[in-house]
Amino acid sequence: MGVGNRAPLPGEFALIRKYFAPLAAGFSGALDLEDDACTYAVPAGHELVLTADALVEGRHYLGTDPADLIARKMLRVNLSDLAAKGAKPVGYLMTTALGPDIDEDWIAKFAAGLAADQREYGLALMGGDTVATPGPTTLSVTALGIVPTGRALRRRGARPGDRLFVSGTIGDGILGLKVLRAELLELGSNHRDALADRYHLPQPRVQLGAALLAGGAVTAAMDVSDGLVADAGHIADASHCGLIIHADRVPLSPAAQEALAEDLDLLPVLLSGGDDYELLFTAGAGFTAPGSGTPVAEIGAVVSGSGVKVLDRDGVEIPLTVGGWQHF
Amino acid sequence: MGVGNRAPLPGEFALIRKYFAPLAAGFSGALDLEDDACTYAVPAGHELVLTADALVEGRHYLGTDPADLIARKMLRVNLSDLAAKGAKPVGYLMTTALGPDIDEDWIAKFAAGLAADQREYGLALMGGDTVATPGPTTLSVTALGIVPTGRALRRRGARPGDRLFVSGTIGDGILGLKVLRAELLELGSNHRDALADRYHLPQPRVQLGAALLAGGAVTAAMDVSDGLVADAGHIADASHCGLIIHADRVPLSPAAQEALAEDLDLLPVLLSGGDDYELLFTAGAGFTAPGSGTPVAEIGAVVSGSGVKVLDRDGVEIPLTVGGWQHF
Repeated sequence: MGVGNRAPLPGEFALIRKYFAPLAAGFSGALDLEDDACTYAVPAGHELVLTADALVEGRHYLGTDPADLIARKMLRVNLSDLAAKGAKPVGYLMTTALGPDIDEDWIAKFAAGLAADQREYGLALMGGDTVATPGPTTLSVTALGIVPTGRALRRRGARPGDRLFVSGTIGDGILGLKVLRAELLELGSNHRDALADRYHLPQPRVQLGAALLAGGAVTAAMDVSDGLVADAGHIADASHCGLIIHADRVPLSPAAQEALAEDLDLLPVLLSGGDDYELLFTAGAGFTAPGSGTPVAEIGAVVSGSGVKVLDRDGVEIPLTVGGWQHF
Repeated sequence: MGVGNRAPLPGEFALIRKYFAPLAAGFSGALDLEDDACTYAVPAGHELVLTADALVEGRHYLGTDPADLIARKMLRVNLSDLAAKGAKPVGYLMTTALGPDIDEDWIAKFAAGLAADQREYGLALMGGDTVATPGPTTLSVTALGIVPTGRALRRRGARPGDRLFVSGTIGDGILGLKVLRAELLELGSNHRDALADRYHLPQPRVQLGAALLAGGAVTAAMDVSDGLVADAGHIADASHCGLIIHADRVPLSPAAQEALAEDLDLLPVLLSGGDDYELLFTAGAGFTAPGSGTPVAEIGAVVSGSGVKVLDRDGVEIPLTVGGWQHF
């Protein structure tokens, strides 16, 4: 550190004391981050759910994105993975490899974003590591949640005859990215803003996931991060069955509806784009959508066989040549 | 990915299936890495110990280091953090941001190194994420261990009158780094090889840590990663006391003894260099070293006050101007 056109950063220990230790203050097991390890006692009758993600500046977010939004999106992407298991979020460990352009103001904003979402989702910073890199800033998070032992929702378990559901709306993530890339200029500014917000700040379906677990009728679940069709394929593969998606039943936001009305070729983009962070799940006949505040739409069915077919309103298969949103 | 003078890498999913899923095969909660999250049930009467570290190519290891040794060192550095808490290692989550120079052969060797240490320490790969970066390869690990609830060793707890102990030998890590930088050319090749090995492949004191916890007499503990004096300072700070270290009682390997005989100015380097991964701990009068196979030396005492004083054999304070091994 200390090179480049900016004030030198404080050292690792000073950064941790000033910006990160306060984020761990609510969590006694973190020992104020004074140790290199923390402790956590899982409540009786529960087991852990763990998930990890890495984000690279310029690939998973833009270097010009506001630092507080980068922090919140990072947490929310992991909370979405926990939500897909029906888990209650507990906390996270975070490693940051900070690039040469990072200054203390960036870190202050980044920590403020973490603090905001810790409050919103009841999380604690449990530990981590802060290093420097000459390359792009690289962030890694391991998020911890808990579920009643043996009850975590999984991708395997869908059975022919189950129905296929998705929460919220699909396609806003990829449209938001297009807006940020100065595409979709024909859309109204309110729609453009809504899409950009959705891209910057996913809404992980934590309450819904817990309600789906509690309801007991869900047979398979995951979150939509690679794109609806690709992620449906993951459920189909893990469950050894096929999935039918009716394109006209896929819920779209008003902004996505207007974008689609302007350009019908956007349909495969919406269905294949990533960063939706909705829950995609299958359930048996007894399922009723929980009153979690998040709308749920029935968009198809589980069938015997393999793979995913997307049908139009006439039942004709829509060829999808746009691949899923492969983060690699 | 796919740029640079090498064969393009397989995609994320293919890499995971081929190299990382087999590493999770022994751990049912990882669901063959088919989900984006894993589950883990902590045994009754135990709580988790968690630690995270980030490693950047060119800073924490050399790009020319053998990939299997990079993997093993990465795991062992985290195992050392667990050992300092007295924890039994369970598994780890890992995120890898792979730079443009990484080819499939590197990944195969890296995975082989992980597999070797998983066997040696009884670990499972529990989850993770694999992404590409245009910058240096950046690795992040979150390691999980377990301890009897409420029993984890901590840095706070040293009391005036306690004795100060350290395991194994001190200074080999920094001397090994010097050997790899083509310094210390006057040393015999057997000593040079031993030091380089010690730098490449730390020996985390997992058995000793568990034995120290079980013995009950240890009042504070940590592992020596930033350098003996700096890490003693961390115990002093956390315990609100002072520490005295008698330099002539600090255990040195035959290689370090020869290096020191050649150049007495190396003493502060040995005492301040990092990457030893020994256990530094304080204990009350009832302490006897456990028969864990790792030697333990008494090197000083806990006193009232603050900070760390290093004394020579005449009791005269040795001024240490070389700072600790600050990884940032």
